[in-house]
Amino acid sequence: MTVYEFAKGLILEAGQQIREKMHASIQVETKSNPNDLVTNVDKETETFIYNNIQETYPEHHVIGEEGHGHDLDSVKGMTWVIDPIDGTLNYVHQGDHFAISIGIYDGGEPYAGFVYDVMGDKLYHAKAGDGAFVDDKALSQINHTTLKTSIIGINPNWLAKPKSEAIFKQVVADARSARAYGSAALEIVNVALGKLAGYMTPRLSPWDYAGAAIILAETGGKATDLLGQPLSIQQPSSVVAANPQLHDELITHYFSHHQEAIQAFHQRIQKS
Amino acid sequence: MTVYEFAKGLILEAGQQIREKMHASIQVETKSNPNDLVTNVDKETETFIYNNIQETYPEHHVIGEEGHGHDLDSVKGMTWVIDPIDGTLNYVHQGDHFAISIGIYDGGEPYAGFVYDVMGDKLYHAKAGDGAFVDDKALSQINHTTLKTSIIGINPNWLAKPKSEAIFKQVVADARSARAYGSAALEIVNVALGKLAGYMTPRLSPWDYAGAAIILAETGGKATDLLGQPLSIQQPSSVVAANPQLHDELITHYFSHHQEAIQAFHQRIQKS
Repeated sequence: MTVYEFAKGLILEAGQQIREKMHASIQVETKSNPNDLVTNVDKETETFIYNNIQETYPEHHVIGEEGHGHDLDSVKGMTWVIDPIDGTLNYVHQGDHFAISIGIYDGGEPYAGFVYDVMGDKLYHAKAGDGAFVDDKALSQINHTTLKTSIIGINPNWLAKPKSEAIFKQVVADARSARAYGSAALEIVNVALGKLAGYMTPRLSPWDYAGAAIILAETGGKATDLLGQPLSIQQPSSVVAANPQLHDELITHYFSHHQEAIQAFHQRIQKS
Repeated sequence: MTVYEFAKGLILEAGQQIREKMHASIQVETKSNPNDLVTNVDKETETFIYNNIQETYPEHHVIGEEGHGHDLDSVKGMTWVIDPIDGTLNYVHQGDHFAISIGIYDGGEPYAGFVYDVMGDKLYHAKAGDGAFVDDKALSQINHTTLKTSIIGINPNWLAKPKSEAIFKQVVADARSARAYGSAALEIVNVALGKLAGYMTPRLSPWDYAGAAIILAETGGKATDLLGQPLSIQQPSSVVAANPQLHDELITHYFSHHQEAIQAFHQRIQKS
């Protein structure tokens, strides 16, 4: 079995376990702030995935949202970047609209990406260079759009905070409309599906985008930080994921006018 | 057959017709502005519903988004308030996440509400006083929440425009998080389901909320304008739909501080 096939089976099994726990009571704790939640199910799911990887591929590295591999200082060999539940607020409040995300990188280069919409039972996946799929169905290449006819993904929260408001307000004002679904992985997948023309945020961690960015690249989309620089699997970052024409319009006509504000975001969230 | 049973069959049949047209090409036109779209399918669906009502209940009135009954100046007798496709932008851009909405009022009083998530094939419905359902399953009464632990529904667009930004910014800043799905009818239904604690907007037409407001009332939720006044089926309005505790908190601690701005919105959108 290839690592790709192994990962596919593993993420489906992890999702099945989450579904089986949907009617049990969950323990909710807060992390960095009162709105940053984590549950026992996030932790159990990461441990389940971690243990399975270690058993089959003891030489692989794992970086997980809930604690694994945060001290990893190299990207040599195979590295799995895992979010056991992307969209934990949705998981807690809605019991829906969350995903398991896995990105696998080989020497820092994309190998394969997986985003599993657990309650919708849809697995989005891509092996770098081989195209992207939802379950067994190939995804089409995405269309190019301009901002004024685009529906973009952005959380309203960023327009209610002065530092991010300055960066994003004009983009939202000039877009056709905006949506916010509450799972970055699913929102980037929505860009790969053409349901959103673009998605943007001043702050994500690698596990939020590591899987979806590989899927997006296979449909012709582009994901970088807001200054147009490549995303890292070792550092948090701002993110803009979009079809290439919209990506170029956003970087050139909008975000390039806010370089200082964006760099300030990066400085607050990245290791020195 | 009761009017309730008749309406249920009719909305399901209209949804089936929309699904059958999903792979045909659609004609898109703009209405009040370049982002206010209408398609031939919106118009055909309204005509289909209208004709069926007229055939079976020639004495009933119909108010429809796409043109029927806009000159109606009384609410005597039975009045159907119809949005053939609520979330037309989603319909055009995503092929998903839109609904048919029907509210039926008897002498201006709620009789029955229907919101059909066409692609999800889920019918939300309620006869006033008899509880709300999704398909055949009864919906529970919703929980009370405070804003700081609430996920609220609001479109980011409203934070990018000065007049509405002033009204909503602090609410978004104080909420746990925010979502935007692009169909007011489905967003109000999400409040009835407890998936959103509240939903708010400075401007909706009666066909956007006439069905969902009846469903929400049956789960213990409250929908009024931003000043706490009852919604009308004859006038556009601002809308806040929420569980009662959050509704009270929003009106008392937030919107009551912006009475003038809200009244100005009402004056711009309501008939004299």
